[in-house]
Amino acid sequence: MRVRTLLFCLSSMLVCFPALAEDGMYPMSELAKLDLAKRGILLTADELFNPNQTSLVDGICRVNGCTGSFVSKDGLIITNHHCAFGAIQQASTLTNDLLTNGFNAVTRAQEISAPDYQVRITESFEDVSAEVLSAVREGMTYSERTRAIEKRRKELEQQAEQKHVGLRAEVAEMFEGKTYLLFLYTFIRDVRLVFAPPSSVGNFGGEADNWEWPRHTGDFSFMRAYVAPDGSSATYDTNNVPYSPKRVIQVQPNGVNENDAVFLLGYPGRTARHKTASFLQYERDVRLPTIVDLYQWQIAEMEAAGAQDRAVAIRHSTRSKSLANVEKRSRGQLQGIRRAQIVETRQQQEAGLQAFIDSDPERKAQYGNVLADIAAVYSEMSQAGQLEINLGQLRSACRAIDFGFFVFDSSVERAKEDLDREADYMNRNFPQTIQKYKVAIGDWHQATDVIMLAGMLDRLGQVPEAKQITPLSPLLGTPQANFNQARELMAATRLGDEAFVLECLDKSPAELESMDDPLLKLVIGLYPTWIAMREKDKEREGRLGQLYGALIQVKQEFMATSFVPDANATLRFTCGHVRGYSPADAVIKTPISTLQGVIDKTTGADPFITPQAVLDKYNAGEFGRFVNPALGQVPVAILYDTDTTGGNSGSPVLNGGGELVGVNFDRCFEATINDFAWDQSYSRSIGVDIRYVLWITGIVYGADHLLEEMGVGNPN
Amino acid sequence: MRVRTLLFCLSSMLVCFPALAEDGMYPMSELAKLDLAKRGILLTADELFNPNQTSLVDGICRVNGCTGSFVSKDGLIITNHHCAFGAIQQASTLTNDLLTNGFNAVTRAQEISAPDYQVRITESFEDVSAEVLSAVREGMTYSERTRAIEKRRKELEQQAEQKHVGLRAEVAEMFEGKTYLLFLYTFIRDVRLVFAPPSSVGNFGGEADNWEWPRHTGDFSFMRAYVAPDGSSATYDTNNVPYSPKRVIQVQPNGVNENDAVFLLGYPGRTARHKTASFLQYERDVRLPTIVDLYQWQIAEMEAAGAQDRAVAIRHSTRSKSLANVEKRSRGQLQGIRRAQIVETRQQQEAGLQAFIDSDPERKAQYGNVLADIAAVYSEMSQAGQLEINLGQLRSACRAIDFGFFVFDSSVERAKEDLDREADYMNRNFPQTIQKYKVAIGDWHQATDVIMLAGMLDRLGQVPEAKQITPLSPLLGTPQANFNQARELMAATRLGDEAFVLECLDKSPAELESMDDPLLKLVIGLYPTWIAMREKDKEREGRLGQLYGALIQVKQEFMATSFVPDANATLRFTCGHVRGYSPADAVIKTPISTLQGVIDKTTGADPFITPQAVLDKYNAGEFGRFVNPALGQVPVAILYDTDTTGGNSGSPVLNGGGELVGVNFDRCFEATINDFAWDQSYSRSIGVDIRYVLWITGIVYGADHLLEEMGVGNPN
Repeated sequence: MRVRTLLFCLSSMLVCFPALAEDGMYPMSELAKLDLAKRGILLTADELFNPNQTSLVDGICRVNGCTGSFVSKDGLIITNHHCAFGAIQQASTLTNDLLTNGFNAVTRAQEISAPDYQVRITESFEDVSAEVLSAVREGMTYSERTRAIEKRRKELEQQAEQKHVGLRAEVAEMFEGKTYLLFLYTFIRDVRLVFAPPSSVGNFGGEADNWEWPRHTGDFSFMRAYVAPDGSSATYDTNNVPYSPKRVIQVQPNGVNENDAVFLLGYPGRTARHKTASFLQYERDVRLPTIVDLYQWQIAEMEAAGAQDRAVAIRHSTRSKSLANVEKRSRGQLQGIRRAQIVETRQQQEAGLQAFIDSDPERKAQYGNVLADIAAVYSEMSQAGQLEINLGQLRSACRAIDFGFFVFDSSVERAKEDLDREADYMNRNFPQTIQKYKVAIGDWHQATDVIMLAGMLDRLGQVPEAKQITPLSPLLGTPQANFNQARELMAATRLGDEAFVLECLDKSPAELESMDDPLLKLVIGLYPTWIAMREKDKEREGRLGQLYGALIQVKQEFMATSFVPDANATLRFTCGHVRGYSPADAVIKTPISTLQGVIDKTTGADPFITPQAVLDKYNAGEFGRFVNPALGQVPVAILYDTDTTGGNSGSPVLNGGGELVGVNFDRCFEATINDFAWDQSYSRSIGVDIRYVLWITGIVYGADHLLEEMGVGNPN
Repeated sequence: MRVRTLLFCLSSMLVCFPALAEDGMYPMSELAKLDLAKRGILLTADELFNPNQTSLVDGICRVNGCTGSFVSKDGLIITNHHCAFGAIQQASTLTNDLLTNGFNAVTRAQEISAPDYQVRITESFEDVSAEVLSAVREGMTYSERTRAIEKRRKELEQQAEQKHVGLRAEVAEMFEGKTYLLFLYTFIRDVRLVFAPPSSVGNFGGEADNWEWPRHTGDFSFMRAYVAPDGSSATYDTNNVPYSPKRVIQVQPNGVNENDAVFLLGYPGRTARHKTASFLQYERDVRLPTIVDLYQWQIAEMEAAGAQDRAVAIRHSTRSKSLANVEKRSRGQLQGIRRAQIVETRQQQEAGLQAFIDSDPERKAQYGNVLADIAAVYSEMSQAGQLEINLGQLRSACRAIDFGFFVFDSSVERAKEDLDREADYMNRNFPQTIQKYKVAIGDWHQATDVIMLAGMLDRLGQVPEAKQITPLSPLLGTPQANFNQARELMAATRLGDEAFVLECLDKSPAELESMDDPLLKLVIGLYPTWIAMREKDKEREGRLGQLYGALIQVKQEFMATSFVPDANATLRFTCGHVRGYSPADAVIKTPISTLQGVIDKTTGADPFITPQAVLDKYNAGEFGRFVNPALGQVPVAILYDTDTTGGNSGSPVLNGGGELVGVNFDRCFEATINDFAWDQSYSRSIGVDIRYVLWITGIVYGADHLLEEMGVGNPN
């Protein structure tokens, strides 16, 4: 079959795309190389990022795994509703369900602490590749190599934090096994919820619309960063004061129009553009389909449990939403990899590279086996995939098992020197690790965990190698037997009890081994298996690190160009235009959705409920200043061809002048394969239009004080 | 809530629609009043229709409930694959499944008789309203009124057929209770299957894509009309010769482009544009939801039965496809009635009309209660709806019951004078009625009928009034008891046996009553109930006929205009342009789909399988002359804003010069409410592009002889 394009320009109605839309999540170091003006950006590279004086990025922050923008001098942050979701859920009670009702702190005293949230702001970075790689010695095994690099990175972080007191240091791997940057961050630990619309606005369309365009979701919330009165980072305290950012992102209440240039700053999490075809085959044939299957099952079980009890539904909501998000993204990626023939395309590219390598004897000697050796690692991962993924899921799906693993692993790791520990157990990270587990234990629901454990035993029973694992094999029975065992184990364990877990954290491995909790005993029995998997991962990481380092080297020779590194949760810049696309033959999607579309989609049944307050303002025609004149409507969401991935959630969508015109929250379904390959025809990101943010906040819910704080003035 | 438009012009990318797109299924009598040139039509009204000499409509025919075009002087007809479906199914065997494989008669001798197909060609019409209505006498009951009109219509038909020997006469009601036309038709009874693509082309997308745009379905087939050697109508005989139509529709192999004017001729079945809001309420609240529920159940049962046995699947295929088609259309109508607020809009119009009526004492005296009296009829129908619809479905769902009803009803009716019989039993219709039942009995499957009977007993058990019906009440038990009874009745009956049914047709009612077939006994016991329902229908028809006659009268006064009558399966003209639309906020659909879209949709799993022959020609780039230069692709389907409904299936899509550029086969989902209200923004019909027809026929399946017969010449 001829290689075919997934999506193509069809109709005379489709506007033709001008040049200069491109992939690229540029690190700050690359900005100076870009012709920003040609991309419609009126700011210079220096105005965007300058470690020596105030620049735009001082107004951007990382909010847990998301991005946010400071929109007032008093530390007011705008991010996504789904990024603040955990905070909203935590603050919800049965009598005041903030997910359903929304939240509006009229005074600062009413703002609600979000204890498992942290905010960080990028201050500077430096290349430490030589220092990191100097830790590697001839003759090391691959896992020794990985450990040596890990430890050197931690040492560099520790040194930097000693030098720059109060800042947080992190060494990020830019090109696998090759380039490392040391980043310094301001780190804020008192974050509070300020304003959230009801989920029926902030998550309108729910999973049905997730990863889809057109979108009609008001996916935004406001939080606020607080510091100690002396300006230092501190955990929640009533004496804390709002953090004063060095730079405020100016809100542009007039929004944006089709074809306008936009750019985003943010913390995209992970992409795999530099990975090989053999990696993509592993994803396509092993990991993605297995994850889709496992997550569909877990989501269905949580939904069934939640349908009977609203309190259970609230407890499961963050986890269920997160699984559903990954499940649908994975389905989109599977479809995209197949339809756009990404594996085949990359195989063709690699065939060209291999020919280039083989064409020179010296080059062949050095790089001749790189692609084959990488493929061998993924082939081994494919073979071990069912066992490893299901053993991993035994912990992820069944939370009490993970809590048990956490206490035992913690006990083992924390007996080591700080720098030799797994990162979660290092002194600098341990308080947050505990906080994360507190939240998870608070959401624990025994009946669901019984089903999850039973289901994972059923699944492991289908994997022949699982029967060779001594502490596991006697547990693998019929579904009925598995369910009975799971029920007994869960009834007898105290691992779902926060006090018990915290108490265990003070015990030695030997003390834990002597305890009579049957589930903890099972976990300790399985601990060597999981540790062997962790060791195996480090070995692969070491091997792949070395191989990918070589691959990037020879690829740069081959293509005679430099690359942009894959996303790695460090600050990146991406730019493009507000622009529609054609997802399928004879279908065009235009790039701005409207309030009328919200009304049209509203059925009154979840996830297409619209709050009466919104309907009232719509019916009264009270749109204030927030109508897009070209459409004659309040715009709701916008579509643009920038290059984003997870972690860009909450990223500011900025106009050419650097003013806030939207808040990024998703990609279209076809763009889920962005993570593997960007393409002008299908890579589109989705943001909530700033005018919808302001209309909902100011006109519908009357939080005029926030508009005033942002310098937007009167909403009318 | 403000009245809102369902669909609206949003984006600058959306072309603006020029004027003169409008509803209207014009009878031939109205053509002279239209400015055809302004509508892009180069032919005059006389060239379209002229009873006194040859005109375009002589090349158009009705093919059972569909439309077809004569595309050669040897009676070659092009119509839809779904219109020829019954013929293809009938000709299929387990060893040669023509639905799967397609069919290509290389010689005329290979053409396969389709005994339950008839073709008719409109020859002329005349207004017989006065004659028909003169049958109504003062003091008649409503059902007497209905019977008197029915009988007068039959008399007029009989007289006309005596006068015009060899032609078929039919009196059609144009405006309910008000206007009647007598049509004369050439009537052909030997129809044969010539060419059908595999269902994977002819029904590509299946129920998933049915009623949807964009479409990628090659929904066409060729049949041929035969007559006796002397040119008279005759049933199948090897000595018959191809019918020579007075006019051949010229195929235009260069197809059509976006924005081109097109028009259709055809036999649209039924619309309800002149019905009241109270009728629409009955549809929305009672009939449509009940039908959706009943059909979903029946379809699921037939699918389950067919999944286990391909032979059963083939037997159920016509019926199942037909139910699925109505089910999805009904869902679309329900959604459309609600979203476009059609009931509310019509209520507003009627409020205006009522005010006009009430404003004049004389008018008020004459018409003051018309709307209320009509509403009273539908209110009564709504109340009786569950009983009546389920009693009707007892016969439709359970085929053996219908066969039993047929033999008993036939025996009762055929004892009457010919003109006093229900139409199916009149001598002129009875052979076709028998043929229809032969086909149905041939497809009968006992196990499915057991499930259907049991299910209908379950449903009737939920209707309180059903328990008052003596022969039914003892049958209404638990689901298990109902199933057992159904199984026993079906095991004991011979009503699924064609020979038995034909034998019964010769018996008197008394003889049938004395037979010991238990299912036949049940049917005879229920016969008075069904006859009472038929009587009730005639009473309502009489009442509504009188009321609607008055309503149209006063509406014409009110609006000071004349109307186009609702569709009634008589020949109509409609025109428009090839044109996209916006089905939802931020979505635009363009009006020509392509072969690339077929490839993109192909998954290899039903209904998205593409035959290897198509893939081979696609991969080889063998597109012959059939590429649309504007798209650089073979076009597959086209979308246009004409006014169509069921019965327009198979209608020629003609360019301004009257050449064939496509074959109409469907509407988009939003346009299912066309039957109740036409609108420029959502009313779109779908046809297969003639270039796809010719590419599939000539290049993919090598039936060059058909292209030659149509005067298209070499496909390359």
